[in-house]
Amino acid sequence: MAAQTVASTTNSVTSADSANSTASAAPTDSVDLGPAAALSCRECGHRVPLGPVFACEECFGPLEIAYDFSAYDTEELRKQIEAGPANIWRYAPLLPVPADVAQKPNINPGWTKLVKADNLARELGVDPGKLFVKDDSGNPTHSFKDRVVAQALEAARAFGFTTLSCSSTGNLAGAVGAAAARAGFRSCVFIPHDLEQGKVVMAAVYGGELVGIEGNYDDVNRFCSELIGDPAGEGWGFVNVNLRPYYAEGSKTLAYEICEQLGWQLPDQLVVPIASGSQLTKIDKGLKELIALGLVEDKPYKIFGAQAEGCSPVSVAYKAGHDVVRPQKPNTIAKSLAIGNPADGPYVLDIARRTGGAVEDVNDEQVVDAIKLLARTEGIFAETAGGVTVGVAKKLIENGLLDPSLTTVVLNTGDGLKTLDAVAGTGLTATIRPSLDSFREAGLA
Amino acid sequence: MAAQTVASTTNSVTSADSANSTASAAPTDSVDLGPAAALSCRECGHRVPLGPVFACEECFGPLEIAYDFSAYDTEELRKQIEAGPANIWRYAPLLPVPADVAQKPNINPGWTKLVKADNLARELGVDPGKLFVKDDSGNPTHSFKDRVVAQALEAARAFGFTTLSCSSTGNLAGAVGAAAARAGFRSCVFIPHDLEQGKVVMAAVYGGELVGIEGNYDDVNRFCSELIGDPAGEGWGFVNVNLRPYYAEGSKTLAYEICEQLGWQLPDQLVVPIASGSQLTKIDKGLKELIALGLVEDKPYKIFGAQAEGCSPVSVAYKAGHDVVRPQKPNTIAKSLAIGNPADGPYVLDIARRTGGAVEDVNDEQVVDAIKLLARTEGIFAETAGGVTVGVAKKLIENGLLDPSLTTVVLNTGDGLKTLDAVAGTGLTATIRPSLDSFREAGLA
Repeated sequence: MAAQTVASTTNSVTSADSANSTASAAPTDSVDLGPAAALSCRECGHRVPLGPVFACEECFGPLEIAYDFSAYDTEELRKQIEAGPANIWRYAPLLPVPADVAQKPNINPGWTKLVKADNLARELGVDPGKLFVKDDSGNPTHSFKDRVVAQALEAARAFGFTTLSCSSTGNLAGAVGAAAARAGFRSCVFIPHDLEQGKVVMAAVYGGELVGIEGNYDDVNRFCSELIGDPAGEGWGFVNVNLRPYYAEGSKTLAYEICEQLGWQLPDQLVVPIASGSQLTKIDKGLKELIALGLVEDKPYKIFGAQAEGCSPVSVAYKAGHDVVRPQKPNTIAKSLAIGNPADGPYVLDIARRTGGAVEDVNDEQVVDAIKLLARTEGIFAETAGGVTVGVAKKLIENGLLDPSLTTVVLNTGDGLKTLDAVAGTGLTATIRPSLDSFREAGLA
Repeated sequence: MAAQTVASTTNSVTSADSANSTASAAPTDSVDLGPAAALSCRECGHRVPLGPVFACEECFGPLEIAYDFSAYDTEELRKQIEAGPANIWRYAPLLPVPADVAQKPNINPGWTKLVKADNLARELGVDPGKLFVKDDSGNPTHSFKDRVVAQALEAARAFGFTTLSCSSTGNLAGAVGAAAARAGFRSCVFIPHDLEQGKVVMAAVYGGELVGIEGNYDDVNRFCSELIGDPAGEGWGFVNVNLRPYYAEGSKTLAYEICEQLGWQLPDQLVVPIASGSQLTKIDKGLKELIALGLVEDKPYKIFGAQAEGCSPVSVAYKAGHDVVRPQKPNTIAKSLAIGNPADGPYVLDIARRTGGAVEDVNDEQVVDAIKLLARTEGIFAETAGGVTVGVAKKLIENGLLDPSLTTVVLNTGDGLKTLDAVAGTGLTATIRPSLDSFREAGLA
């Protein structure tokens, strides 16, 4: 039922980046990526065949997937989805993957809990039954990155790549290592050589190559771009570089799941973290697709972006009324959001303004408070990124920008076990001798 | 459709323990715990009404739940389960919980992935398609403890308790803290005062009371038993003491899920970790219930128990042909399994022998190797307990005790992020300068 498009990957796209975005194209003559019909430039609309490219040959704009959904019957599609597996592949007809994707070895993320957060709602002054937390810590490696890596893996398979790679400072390294291990790919992940030991272990345990680069994260990225343009990088799929158009689509599944879990309804308001901004833009894309397909009623929704004050280029631009984003040097505990020059920043600004949302930031103390607030109200232990979204939701309600009478979904995209340092001050409430007397003396009775 | 039993909780059971097992009974006149009909002594069969008691008044044997499943029609039950939520409450008709349990605030664990582990199978010499890993790291606080705590919470609610408590050295503390937070219970968790800071943080973040006891884990347990017998403990539900019969039933859901995920088929062989032994005995109970209800075909299955060599009292007894278990002083990195005097040890021996299974152990080095093996083959990062089961499965195949041609399920009950120290030796495979020359010199091209 998916309109299968067989397209040549031959192309002559060049990128604005130092990497030649075609150099690593694998020698495939045709690809089956389900309903994905082509790559289309977000800026100028120029279309090219599906391939491991990421920048428009005409205007250097970002390429994204164009689909052919024309053959779908709404009710049949809904039934197919509902009968699908309890992971993102239930949405295979809407993703750049072959129809039999669920039978291939992948880590199968998604279908994470949408938690009705009545206790948190009470604390924030939101009407009962109206506040939800989409908790992506339930994914295989406990962050939303599993969603995007799972997509990139299928693209890598389609293009005949044999090595999965990325630059990373944390969550992504683990997600790539795990997915590659399961799918039988070689993995080679590049990280700054002086990363904390805990993060190194989390990435290294999957047994792939983990290469420390003498330099900072920018140096790591520059090196990866060089490698893509070199014969040494042949057969390598860099999930967030030459596979980025496919990778990014994984974030749409957050939108799909939220709506299906709300009973095929759009939420009125969403609070989404901003790192590169890609997640937020793809959630918007996913919501628009559901409307276009008739799977949800067409009604307005507002998307709010959340940043940490120590890395708030989009929030600053939003408040200043700018259309462009001025880069910042990150300095925040929310390291998974610490991208000082977010590629999709301008798109985020546009979406926040167009939907009637906003972009807001909170400081590190507020991030920690929000992590603790979510844990003690709902039993969800979030990564610092979750502290950012919950903290921003609180601030937006106080500001009057977020309407507490409407259905609101706040995203938690990671797991507190990965950022234990943020709440290291949390500890014993009392220490006693093993006796009832001591228990009473401590006022615990 | 569940045969509802309303029973008085009045009783006069006394326990072999230092705690009076009736002292903390809450003032409820009736309880609705769905198909749970009574408590029944595992040793002598003596029945008492449902209540917060755990030891038989006749023989001091352990009490467990007796059900009334007589009203169930097999096919209707199967349909009801399949239409249920993607968590343990899909099995509400088979658990000591009210029929509307899914509407109550709980952390809703379960329905974790059963991963077809073809890469691991290849390494272990198991036939393709025959080896599965039941990965309970996908639970809300990333261990199987969420299953048992979720049950205890519903019992605590039914008995009118307002505080949820336990003694713990790790996973259980987090599970109790999270569940209590979400359900609006006070929580008060007792741990040895000198626990590692990371574990303290994981338990403390949920905002409940976390009390350090000056002493070791045995001192903590003794103190909890004292507290249950004291007026200060009134209204307190200790999940693994006075709520133990309910708590323990949570492990049955592992058996239910495995069979449903195999297409309502019994596996031929299961490899299950042994701490107290309760999980293994309840998995056996769950499998027998499915057979009795006609939900799976009645055929033989073998249950294998897995221990770490540094805490292997059941394995030692099994190999010596003993019926009783001689306590050990634990010394292993598999701390979540380190119970030197496992209460259900004799039952485990009986089940392993009756089903044709075995009990085996592996040393700490083998545990670490198995953690890495599972990670690099299937992208699953297991806790040390998962290293024990995978390591034991490997050893059992080498021993010829586990048949590699039969369907085998190996349990991973926890998350590697909680026992990072075990694989702390894992690290960078290379360090290079950010240049292609350096990349080539390192032999990575």
